[in-house]
Amino acid sequence: MSKNRDLFNKHLLHPWGNLPELGEDESISVIVKGEGAYIYDEEGNKLLDGPAGMWCMQTGYGRKEIADAIAKQVMELGYATSFTVTNPVEAELAQRIASQTPGDLNRIFFTTGGSTAVDSALRLCQLANNIKGQPQRKHILTREKAYHGSTFLGASVTGKERDKSAMDVYQDYVHFLSVPCQYHHPDFDSEADFCDFLIQELEDKIAELGPENVMCMIAEPVLGSGGVVVPPADYNRRCCETVQKHGIYYIADEVVTAFGRLGHWFASEKVFNTSPDIITFAKGITSGYVPLGGYAVSDKFMEAISGDNAKGRIYSNGYTWSGAPVPCAAALASWDIIENEKILDNVHEVGPYFQEQLRTLKDIPLVGDVRGIGMMAAVEMTLQGHTGSREDLLAKDYAIGAMVDDYCHQFGLLVRPFINVCIMSPPLILTKAQVDDLVLAMRKALELTLNDLREQGIWVD
Amino acid sequence: MSKNRDLFNKHLLHPWGNLPELGEDESISVIVKGEGAYIYDEEGNKLLDGPAGMWCMQTGYGRKEIADAIAKQVMELGYATSFTVTNPVEAELAQRIASQTPGDLNRIFFTTGGSTAVDSALRLCQLANNIKGQPQRKHILTREKAYHGSTFLGASVTGKERDKSAMDVYQDYVHFLSVPCQYHHPDFDSEADFCDFLIQELEDKIAELGPENVMCMIAEPVLGSGGVVVPPADYNRRCCETVQKHGIYYIADEVVTAFGRLGHWFASEKVFNTSPDIITFAKGITSGYVPLGGYAVSDKFMEAISGDNAKGRIYSNGYTWSGAPVPCAAALASWDIIENEKILDNVHEVGPYFQEQLRTLKDIPLVGDVRGIGMMAAVEMTLQGHTGSREDLLAKDYAIGAMVDDYCHQFGLLVRPFINVCIMSPPLILTKAQVDDLVLAMRKALELTLNDLREQGIWVD
Repeated sequence: MSKNRDLFNKHLLHPWGNLPELGEDESISVIVKGEGAYIYDEEGNKLLDGPAGMWCMQTGYGRKEIADAIAKQVMELGYATSFTVTNPVEAELAQRIASQTPGDLNRIFFTTGGSTAVDSALRLCQLANNIKGQPQRKHILTREKAYHGSTFLGASVTGKERDKSAMDVYQDYVHFLSVPCQYHHPDFDSEADFCDFLIQELEDKIAELGPENVMCMIAEPVLGSGGVVVPPADYNRRCCETVQKHGIYYIADEVVTAFGRLGHWFASEKVFNTSPDIITFAKGITSGYVPLGGYAVSDKFMEAISGDNAKGRIYSNGYTWSGAPVPCAAALASWDIIENEKILDNVHEVGPYFQEQLRTLKDIPLVGDVRGIGMMAAVEMTLQGHTGSREDLLAKDYAIGAMVDDYCHQFGLLVRPFINVCIMSPPLILTKAQVDDLVLAMRKALELTLNDLREQGIWVD
Repeated sequence: MSKNRDLFNKHLLHPWGNLPELGEDESISVIVKGEGAYIYDEEGNKLLDGPAGMWCMQTGYGRKEIADAIAKQVMELGYATSFTVTNPVEAELAQRIASQTPGDLNRIFFTTGGSTAVDSALRLCQLANNIKGQPQRKHILTREKAYHGSTFLGASVTGKERDKSAMDVYQDYVHFLSVPCQYHHPDFDSEADFCDFLIQELEDKIAELGPENVMCMIAEPVLGSGGVVVPPADYNRRCCETVQKHGIYYIADEVVTAFGRLGHWFASEKVFNTSPDIITFAKGITSGYVPLGGYAVSDKFMEAISGDNAKGRIYSNGYTWSGAPVPCAAALASWDIIENEKILDNVHEVGPYFQEQLRTLKDIPLVGDVRGIGMMAAVEMTLQGHTGSREDLLAKDYAIGAMVDDYCHQFGLLVRPFINVCIMSPPLILTKAQVDDLVLAMRKALELTLNDLREQGIWVD
């Protein structure tokens, strides 16, 4: 076993670590190098990075501009606390973000990632209602299969089933609406009908709880790790307007969709014509190199809880690295690259080609659905002819995901399926030639997997 | 107004932001440069950095070794997700940490800071008891004036009063014990009596809740932002042993005390003879340059919830930047500096001098208490002869803190008092000459403040 894998087994606990196998994982990949859209494992395999790290390597690996900017910032001012002072780097980054957010979302709070961004945004809503004399507004609306992070509060509003397995959550005030995925709701005649159903469900839930008791709705514009679910046309806008008309805050969780993944700095307004009260962000803001997250909140929101409205009130929330200059410098450098290299334009050009080419995989019987938008997509595998139990299907789905994963690895592509769904969110610098490589690798992997399933008698034609 | 201050007012919300003054702060310092133990504001003032950023700049500002290590890592492997793969940098850092933690605390989970470290550690305890068939163990023991971070869950176990003002918390399972500060409990004849009282209070609370219902105790070995409270001799060890004998986990929150602040990599065992089940860390691990935190958990703890004991269980918790290579590379570089420059030895040499010199300030009547250990200390101011209300005293305490702060700034020292307590946690590279400068600046500031208070009739001799 490699030294690094040995150290991993002895000394590390990983996110979503498989506890029965703790300390005995002999197959985990050790990644040692990154370059452009590729990563290399310690056996020397070169892999196209399908997930872009973790939805985050917007500008790709090995960016000298970012290395230089960080090194310069470390030498100039390596840290300053935003608890008591400010620094020019966070000020410039906040200004740039405010210039790209919709409406009057002009005030920025920085955290250390997406989970803390969501946690802080929810706590801001709690504080705001307390200050406004509406402390009874506590209910949070979210969706099945949503992912909103890993703090106790973030995990509590996360709808992915396995994420809650055996972990405690804060249940009293959290309510899950249907996932807006038509593939999993085939009963509706049209997208418009399905959308009407979803909005009615939202209205009904608000009425049931009492609109005056609902604090906020939190929603990814496109559900990410829940399976790249692109909602029906107008769904996001209608959700936002529905809750806002009841005085309920709308939080767009753009941790995945911001910073270019859908071809815009933020997707809420430009792609979905939506005007949230708060937008959370993280991941791609630094092209993944260093931790940074935060939220943008509207001036209108803050006016109601500042000045004379807020006598004696403090926003008692914040992190050691809120607004720290080094992460902010990395974000500015990544921002400059996106502008200088016209990477948003690349997403507009390569994104549709990526979507179109992936959809050619639908001719493989194992592929149940291909969906996505911009530079995020999912290929969902479906076990045709399965007659066993739900547990048996889940076990087989995991196995199929692992088989596709292994084959893709052989063909130079990292996919890392979420159970039976291959989720892709490649670096935004992807070329059309790399799209072809990616789709070809997936095709070969899916066909070989299907053959194996047939041979094992698991697949019935 | 400076451009940066203008941007701050327009676009930033800061941790512990004063909401009534939101957008109208004309005095916030804009820090533009750091060098060694000094920072510089944009007016060109050079300030000795009393708080070391935020308890974090262990090796000081402008470290070329750290700039180089980060830049190299950015070029080599700027990111790798610990959700599905591993990398050599997190493996090496985990090994080094495990080599310095007490007992069998050999397994490391990385997060993005102290708040997420605490949040994750508490969630691990919840998960563990659920797996072990003890889901009723939910109660958390903590102390008044404790600080454990800013996520919803971290803030809920935080005992500092103003931190909870108007913010919601998770109350059902959180219990606050007395702060182990003898200065604020003058009724006890001796430190030993006070300690006996505290341990009895702990025993009583456990008996009241039922030992089988208590999940954990979480405690900073020395309370940090709660006022640098050094507990009575043997208090930490006795708390730890008391809870563990009931099968209750003990979490030492070493976000402040680890990585050299008390002269050791970790303080629990070396300074306090304590063997926690979990130790949380953050801040100083990277010398503050980039966000990184985490916890170390004992092999014994994990054995009970892995392998055959954990069928089908996943540790569904983690962050995009858990184990990310760039923060880990910064931590390794900071670690090397601490070793190469024998900075722990410097703490053993300069720490006692720092404590001794600060205590000379006790001859100033405004100084009520000076306390501390290693490279962390507090000078608490007390308004003698005050006869007004509690609110009036608090307002005056804030004013006194602000006066001392202003004078210190004039004399080239950043202190940033917490209300009436000047908390200091300077860079660990501090020299004795810099201790002299710091103490002299404080003396002058305290004396001038006392004069002002006398002139204003607020101080009565």
